[in-house]
Amino acid sequence: MTLTILKGTIVSAADPRRPEVTEGGYLAAEDGVITGVFPALPEQYAGAPVEDFGQDLILQSFADLHLHAPQYPMLGTGMDLPLLDWLNAYAFPTEARFADPGYAREVYRRLARELIENGTTRVCMFSSLHTDATLILMEELERAGVTGYVGKVNMDRNGAPGLLEETTEESKRETLRWLDACGDFRYIRPILTPRFTPSCTDELMEFLGKLALQRDLPVQSHLSENQAEVEWVRRLHPDCAQYWESYAKFGLWKPGTVMAHCVWSDARERQAMHDAGVTAVYCADSNQNLCSGVAPVVQMLREGVRVALGSDIAGGGHLSMFDVVAASIRSSKARRILDGWETEFLTVPEGWYLGTSAGAAYFGAAPGFAPGNPLHALVLSDGALPQPHPLTPLERLERCVYRRQERAVRAVWSAGRKVYAAP
Amino acid sequence: MTLTILKGTIVSAADPRRPEVTEGGYLAAEDGVITGVFPALPEQYAGAPVEDFGQDLILQSFADLHLHAPQYPMLGTGMDLPLLDWLNAYAFPTEARFADPGYAREVYRRLARELIENGTTRVCMFSSLHTDATLILMEELERAGVTGYVGKVNMDRNGAPGLLEETTEESKRETLRWLDACGDFRYIRPILTPRFTPSCTDELMEFLGKLALQRDLPVQSHLSENQAEVEWVRRLHPDCAQYWESYAKFGLWKPGTVMAHCVWSDARERQAMHDAGVTAVYCADSNQNLCSGVAPVVQMLREGVRVALGSDIAGGGHLSMFDVVAASIRSSKARRILDGWETEFLTVPEGWYLGTSAGAAYFGAAPGFAPGNPLHALVLSDGALPQPHPLTPLERLERCVYRRQERAVRAVWSAGRKVYAAP
Repeated sequence: MTLTILKGTIVSAADPRRPEVTEGGYLAAEDGVITGVFPALPEQYAGAPVEDFGQDLILQSFADLHLHAPQYPMLGTGMDLPLLDWLNAYAFPTEARFADPGYAREVYRRLARELIENGTTRVCMFSSLHTDATLILMEELERAGVTGYVGKVNMDRNGAPGLLEETTEESKRETLRWLDACGDFRYIRPILTPRFTPSCTDELMEFLGKLALQRDLPVQSHLSENQAEVEWVRRLHPDCAQYWESYAKFGLWKPGTVMAHCVWSDARERQAMHDAGVTAVYCADSNQNLCSGVAPVVQMLREGVRVALGSDIAGGGHLSMFDVVAASIRSSKARRILDGWETEFLTVPEGWYLGTSAGAAYFGAAPGFAPGNPLHALVLSDGALPQPHPLTPLERLERCVYRRQERAVRAVWSAGRKVYAAP
Repeated sequence: MTLTILKGTIVSAADPRRPEVTEGGYLAAEDGVITGVFPALPEQYAGAPVEDFGQDLILQSFADLHLHAPQYPMLGTGMDLPLLDWLNAYAFPTEARFADPGYAREVYRRLARELIENGTTRVCMFSSLHTDATLILMEELERAGVTGYVGKVNMDRNGAPGLLEETTEESKRETLRWLDACGDFRYIRPILTPRFTPSCTDELMEFLGKLALQRDLPVQSHLSENQAEVEWVRRLHPDCAQYWESYAKFGLWKPGTVMAHCVWSDARERQAMHDAGVTAVYCADSNQNLCSGVAPVVQMLREGVRVALGSDIAGGGHLSMFDVVAASIRSSKARRILDGWETEFLTVPEGWYLGTSAGAAYFGAAPGFAPGNPLHALVLSDGALPQPHPLTPLERLERCVYRRQERAVRAVWSAGRKVYAAP
């Protein structure tokens, strides 16, 4: 049996409103599975080796539930257009380059490393439509220690002709080829990924719906991000009263389905998410950058909708989930302003919970460092910063969300394995 | 004569819509004063030493027109309360510690260094009410190479009794003592700083107005940040139709006056800014963090109001003006969403112009690297990042605004002097 015992200031997002703090505590895992957080070293671990991080924060690592790997090279550029124009002008040409496996290898290796260095150990990720590049992405994530889901994108209409497009037949055939090649991955699993309703013919959607059922595969896509997009879907599917029904009618709306954005989802659409057990991914930075709108995240939470966070690179400009948590909180404040100060904003503990426990819940984990969870953790060393008074652990948590702390992540564990140690 | 010649990819914000780009260009200064940007080395500089930065970007350094130095230790914490509660709960106790000169020395040395490392070379800054700490702040800024204005804060009512408060007499006397001690500074000059109308009695305001006139001193304060504050000022000054008049009636509303925030300034108040030559400081991140609102920045610019940017630490969470420019752009997009997509957002060139040329204009500089300007510049090395295609200089400018680039600032010049070189 492999034993891991970490000592430090442990903050566990067991509850969205009140993180549990254990100063000088011990976080223990056996064979990579957490056995508990203890204020003192339990008898049964007496004499076992302890990694002592002093006063440093031991936090859960992050789950990023929506990001586009092939948009990583354009991170931080091209955010001056609304969604549909942005896709054509920036995103599609950038993704097209992943027809080249050598380029994919180089970019994805770097992306995977940057994710781990920033403490993101779980993802739900879009690849491009390229099967080979998708398999390379999965290899590189697995090698770096990232876990979760990756999807080869399906898009057989309204792509970029001659650049980024596949026929319906190609899309089906390549999806099957991709799925057949995924057997060897241990930590990265496939997720069906129709890009969004305007990108997929009915025939392709039907195929994907059947595949999801036959092979018990999860599904990810986009929902109600932008008003022009919502209107477009309405014209494409006049039989559907709402956007979500364009997924539901093909069997793609089910427990385990992940829908990014949901900015324009009204009460009925949110109810449909709630009832089906669909996870909504709040991509605050992206939605503000592309002027899509501001999702009613607090409202969704109050209604019991499952919500997690997504960096949505490269509509979003931050890969680091510390920044994404901060952007989510800030954006919820913009929502409060939009609503005439009638709605609440996300508190720091709530934002932190969404970036960690809520995302981990999608992968079956209980909130916080609960016993039975695979160990996903990071150590943050913030001791060098000035402080107005000795900060409490929760003040330190707030500061690590808001304040850029260069190279403060000292170590990262993913699914029980130590995958990063700062040089 | 000292000659400085920098070679690289020069981007000059000479125009808010279209920065001037000179690839492989030469930026020259004689005795610290810019003589021009040249596509080739001019005859008269033949044989002179050139600092060649290869493909690196040579950019103007930043002007931060509103920040609170004594709130630096709380950067990234305590942003869950509206302005007036936030002042009492967080800002005042944090500022109170600057009664201790040793503490002030330590914190301000670090702040000054961090400003320079992030390429901020001009500031318009609030100190606390403490005269000695204010002089220490000025010393440390001067030592690090920061230029601009610093103000000892005046606040003789509605402070924190027993913690952060001065009597009217003390405030007057200490202001005079402070001004008398400022004579030795070359690059850092005093600016009168009534905290905001609710913090100052009429007697003190009248004193400051006369002092401003007698000694030809500029003035900085806060204006129309938060609705409760605006209402409070209305109650305190029933004779004033609008907030700005509570400054105007004491002679504090004049060319060279800097007013932070202006979130709730309506057309009439904005007209008053325009007419008086008052500079409005857009503090986007702070206004969103404290749920103050979103200032109509594009509207102000269209109306010809002078606008610059402020980090407003620690209501704002970013000291780096790269982040402040990005936050300003994002916030202008929130404004667009608030306005039902009726107003424009700040483009990247516009945001960049505000953070550089518009702020520098307050100190008398012409836009961009204009001949006659003191040399304020930074070199940014962004060559290590992946890219989807060879980026243009303007795409690189956009990326340096949006994307955290650790330790990318290679060198900084301030008022003609090289004040930083990366280790």
